[in-house]
Amino acid sequence: MKIEGVDFFYLSMPEVLDIGDGSQDALLVRIRAGGLEGWGECEGSPVTSIAGYVTPMSHSACKPLKYSLEGKEINSVADIEKISFSVHQNSFDLLQADHTLSGIDIALWDLLGKKREEPVYKLLGYKKSFPKLPYASQLFGDTAEHTYQKAKQIKQAGFKALKFGWAGFGQTDLKTDTAQLLAAREGFGEGYLMIDAGTAWGDQLAPALERREALEKIKAFWLEEPFANLALSSYNKFAASCPLVPLAGGEGCNNFLQAKAMIQFGGLKYIQIDAGRIGGITAAKKLVDLAVESNLTYVNHTFTSHLALSASLQPYAGIEQHFLCEYPSELKSLAYDITETKILRDENGYVPVPEGAGLGISVSMEALQKYLVDVEIIVKGQTIYHTPAL
Amino acid sequence: MKIEGVDFFYLSMPEVLDIGDGSQDALLVRIRAGGLEGWGECEGSPVTSIAGYVTPMSHSACKPLKYSLEGKEINSVADIEKISFSVHQNSFDLLQADHTLSGIDIALWDLLGKKREEPVYKLLGYKKSFPKLPYASQLFGDTAEHTYQKAKQIKQAGFKALKFGWAGFGQTDLKTDTAQLLAAREGFGEGYLMIDAGTAWGDQLAPALERREALEKIKAFWLEEPFANLALSSYNKFAASCPLVPLAGGEGCNNFLQAKAMIQFGGLKYIQIDAGRIGGITAAKKLVDLAVESNLTYVNHTFTSHLALSASLQPYAGIEQHFLCEYPSELKSLAYDITETKILRDENGYVPVPEGAGLGISVSMEALQKYLVDVEIIVKGQTIYHTPAL
Repeated sequence: MKIEGVDFFYLSMPEVLDIGDGSQDALLVRIRAGGLEGWGECEGSPVTSIAGYVTPMSHSACKPLKYSLEGKEINSVADIEKISFSVHQNSFDLLQADHTLSGIDIALWDLLGKKREEPVYKLLGYKKSFPKLPYASQLFGDTAEHTYQKAKQIKQAGFKALKFGWAGFGQTDLKTDTAQLLAAREGFGEGYLMIDAGTAWGDQLAPALERREALEKIKAFWLEEPFANLALSSYNKFAASCPLVPLAGGEGCNNFLQAKAMIQFGGLKYIQIDAGRIGGITAAKKLVDLAVESNLTYVNHTFTSHLALSASLQPYAGIEQHFLCEYPSELKSLAYDITETKILRDENGYVPVPEGAGLGISVSMEALQKYLVDVEIIVKGQTIYHTPAL
Repeated sequence: MKIEGVDFFYLSMPEVLDIGDGSQDALLVRIRAGGLEGWGECEGSPVTSIAGYVTPMSHSACKPLKYSLEGKEINSVADIEKISFSVHQNSFDLLQADHTLSGIDIALWDLLGKKREEPVYKLLGYKKSFPKLPYASQLFGDTAEHTYQKAKQIKQAGFKALKFGWAGFGQTDLKTDTAQLLAAREGFGEGYLMIDAGTAWGDQLAPALERREALEKIKAFWLEEPFANLALSSYNKFAASCPLVPLAGGEGCNNFLQAKAMIQFGGLKYIQIDAGRIGGITAAKKLVDLAVESNLTYVNHTFTSHLALSASLQPYAGIEQHFLCEYPSELKSLAYDITETKILRDENGYVPVPEGAGLGISVSMEALQKYLVDVEIIVKGQTIYHTPAL
């Protein structure tokens, strides 16, 4: 089937707050071919990602992404890989390309799954999927007391794993951070407890080492992104000095090779991939394979809708040992509403990978209409993008 | 002085060809403060980079770049560094941010230099500048014979160093490439001859190793980007297997930490930084310091205007041992015309670093007017960007 249309929809909450909550807006991609439609989602900065799709060419390696999509055939997994390869060949000087590609690639897998009437994970070669243990992904409270209450609520809501991060953690003093860490463990009790430093320390080793004792005390299951993405030597040294605090990272990577470098040189135990940033399901699956080969554990990074969540689960759906998944548990209404299908925990507290065709997720046209933002980009008097009809 | 305006100008040749020539369009940044104006240039995809400046916020780490600029004070080097830091804190999930920042940062240095009435390299701490030996940067010819002729012409034009790349090199067969390499050396005779594989082999080691014999035969001064940016283990292995073919790379890096990873784990001998991609002069100077510390040689990457060329020379102007510079020698008229000041070779064939205040380059308003492209971005019925008046 030939690609007939690639449409981008920028959705936003009426008000976007200056907080570390990535569920306040979304960029959805709809790809139509052969009477079917596939849906995908890109992480972050919708208008910039749209611009990368429609912008005029700068030179042979800096083409708009539409060059690699328009009129192309999608009949097989190889065709999706071909598009991914083409984007990297033809748009590699367009920095935003990988984020735009991510939503496109996800939509292509959804489309092909719908054509084959199979879930994406089967197209990826898995015979069956294994439910994942969701960890509730939460922002730290404003105070240690607030964090304690949040942790308690998550426990009461039945989660067996919890991650706290952001909201100032790592950016004030050791005492404040230590109180936050202890409160998190106290409120949550037994269970997997992860800490996300949100790249707070750039490439500075010392502040990370200062938190070591508290992290060991609360038996942090992992410490996530103490350093900026690709600060390899800092990751490396921390891993060597603090074997009891396993490192997780990789969400900031925007292509396979960056994440490969993190795996090979960063001393990580957990590689966290956001399918909405890394280039979609194609790149994510290659990283699952590399993680298995390298004895690391793969975990999704997802802080947005259940469409993005399904896309992030498919690449490692068939790997039983890689059992954890990030599960956004305080979504803004937008991110929750835009899918009719929800991925909910079962009676054991696990989340199943959707079994429907493609991503197994129905998009809610009503919600899209509600949150849709009108965008128009005009170059030389010609409209090169205008929010399409739903 | 307070920043009063940050203006982006997208310039383009009337026709942009599908060739590896980055001088076919340009994105210039003008920053006004205290009655002065500074100019900078971003590499690649103007409309996407503009979108990154004006787009609505997605969340706290995905803000438009204007958040870090509007109304800020610029009185010192520390103020410029503060803006760079702020962009990384507030826009790190906006992938295009570093490319947009690059032009902004360059314009800020130009502005501060003009205020202090000193060239940028003095603000960077150098007492004097050393002229650089320019290598002519050329695309391979369509055939070996064509390459031979091009090499001969460059020799006759007085260049002592020459680099060929792109135009299909590495993408066909060994025989064709070998003929190209031999023709380059034959046409150029004695002198520094560099080869740019333009990431042709992704992260595949084998095709690079296959070219080893020919590269050794022509005494390639360096082999540039045989692999994609950050394909660290391939770089590493090639460096270990082919000590007679020094590696150069890094132009694809878009921040300090990526280039640091290339320096620390890639086995490079030459680190090539494009000030128009890496985040500007601020990040470039940090990499010069790291290169010196790590016993690597720093080289600029520049394929666009003389404004970009000046910006790329300033960071290592004061390091005599790092003596080579990339010198775009087949610029499209746009890239040549947009500066009134040209950086020309002296009688010894070297190029001086401009001594004028800031970047020491006058922008040609007439040329800007000629190549200016009108762009408008409208979100929710409001124009968030429209090409400003010159």
